[in-house]
Amino acid sequence: MNSLYVLDLIGTFVFAISGTRAAADKNMDLFGAAFIGFTTALGGGTIRDILLGTQPVNWFYDETYLWVILSAVIFTYLFNSLTHKLKATLFLFDTIGLGVFTIIGIEKSINLGITPPYALIMGMVSAVVGGIIRDTFCNEIPLIFRKEIYATACLIGGSVLLILTQFYQINNIASYILAILIVLAIRIAAIKWELKLPTLN
Amino acid sequence: MNSLYVLDLIGTFVFAISGTRAAADKNMDLFGAAFIGFTTALGGGTIRDILLGTQPVNWFYDETYLWVILSAVIFTYLFNSLTHKLKATLFLFDTIGLGVFTIIGIEKSINLGITPPYALIMGMVSAVVGGIIRDTFCNEIPLIFRKEIYATACLIGGSVLLILTQFYQINNIASYILAILIVLAIRIAAIKWELKLPTLN
Amino acid sequence: MNSLYVLDLIGTFVFAISGTRAAADKNMDLFGAAFIGFTTALGGGTIRDILLGTQPVNWFYDETYLWVILSAVIFTYLFNSLTHKLKATLFLFDTIGLGVFTIIGIEKSINLGITPPYALIMGMVSAVVGGIIRDTFCNEIPLIFRKEIYATACLIGGSVLLILTQFYQINNIASYILAILIVLAIRIAAIKWELKLPTLN
Repeated sequence: MNSLYVLDLIGTFVFAISGTRAAADKNMDLFGAAFIGFTTALGGGTIRDILLGTQPVNWFYDETYLWVILSAVIFTYLFNSLTHKLKATLFLFDTIGLGVFTIIGIEKSINLGITPPYALIMGMVSAVVGGIIRDTFCNEIPLIFRKEIYATACLIGGSVLLILTQFYQINNIASYILAILIVLAIRIAAIKWELKLPTLN
Repeated sequence: MNSLYVLDLIGTFVFAISGTRAAADKNMDLFGAAFIGFTTALGGGTIRDILLGTQPVNWFYDETYLWVILSAVIFTYLFNSLTHKLKATLFLFDTIGLGVFTIIGIEKSINLGITPPYALIMGMVSAVVGGIIRDTFCNEIPLIFRKEIYATACLIGGSVLLILTQFYQINNIASYILAILIVLAIRIAAIKWELKLPTLN
Repeated sequence: MNSLYVLDLIGTFVFAISGTRAAADKNMDLFGAAFIGFTTALGGGTIRDILLGTQPVNWFYDETYLWVILSAVIFTYLFNSLTHKLKATLFLFDTIGLGVFTIIGIEKSINLGITPPYALIMGMVSAVVGGIIRDTFCNEIPLIFRKEIYATACLIGGSVLLILTQFYQINNIASYILAILIVLAIRIAAIKWELKLPTLN
């Protein structure tokens, strides 16, 4: 769990950077950037906790999240050009964060007695809803509704985790690493081969 | 209650179609369509449950909602032109769904000790908030804020239900049917005579 | 507490007017105006209660909020030109409302065992989230993300309150008045000297 916590904080940091940069692109000020940074980083887990009814929401019990997010906002303001150069690194950590948030959402839901199909949805919600709120506040149609294999990667990685833990009782760090690697592989494959989900029209 | 449950599922199916089509009109992909389908169908009841504090939200206990919504998304993708031809039928079922969601929201609130004025608001919230979230994600000002006698039909139908149940203790299937018929009659009248609520400017 | 309750109702009234006018500027009808009026006035406290898990949300227990908000909507419809002339008065009451909502949010959070940094955030959330929801429904990037020293005034006023109550045990009406005066002074100074927070680009 300890390594999952470290990865969770890294994901939180990178998600907060993504929120801060989206806000800056819309000419928001420091407060707007910090607010969007917070909601991007904590929004998914917050909505998960609210749907499950496990409030006060998880981050109230750990100020580390607060300082990690504020650090990410300040880091982005101070080293903005650096965050553009670190594109590949941020993509890597963003995807790891995506996988870790999915795992944490699934585990928490299963422990509360939620059935696997809804637990899978809750894992995906934990991972992607922060970005949906970010784009909504930025007055954009959420990116993940339009392109990128993003939520789909979470759903497939989460499904593998659920199969391993529910059918084979393999519930350890190896299953976590496998789920994260699947999310990472699908995202890289989607970019390399320009994979897209079908649209109706 | 059993017939109310069947009508609830029909309403869920038709609301999910409306969400899927709104997403498709914005060129969202299959994931975006499914996500908007879910939030349109379940958003109202979810916000009601969160405001009332009765989480985990109601649909966690019944996977039927999940499969009904996924069926609606797939149905819309496979038979898109059919959903355009079935316009009158979808309008009918959409309005029945509106009435049923209003009834369920009012009954649940009253049973939790909420006073009638707020129970009426919770009934309306159950019926219309899914559509509000749908339009917000589609980056549009929610339709029901601008035109159509829609929420107003819910408020009038819900008021009649509350008068029957609170003052006359008529709390049976007849009062439900009457409330649904009132919602239907108001919507048809509003379209026929182009009724609108006043605007300020 | 009684004087705080009166100020809370005044803040609710003025926030509801701001929501009603924002809706009218977008050509919404009476229902849209009332809905936005409600969410602007009650949205901040509602999100605070949901994050803290103290549902049913606070206003379910007091119909006064309902009638105050409906009065504000009707008042705005009847005396629209008057609300434009009363600009300075509305600014004053809006800022008092901002301060009172901040105080109530902080006090409620501290009483539930939330640590001061998060309690400060919850105070700010109580004060500004109603306006954020208003602007989102109006399909605008929330104003407070872009300009105006607004949330910052809440954070500074709230910090002074927390220092007085936590470090000096000064927990009385004087500390409340001081916090509100600080919020007011910062807003007036920000307008007078055109103070702005930095932006990234």
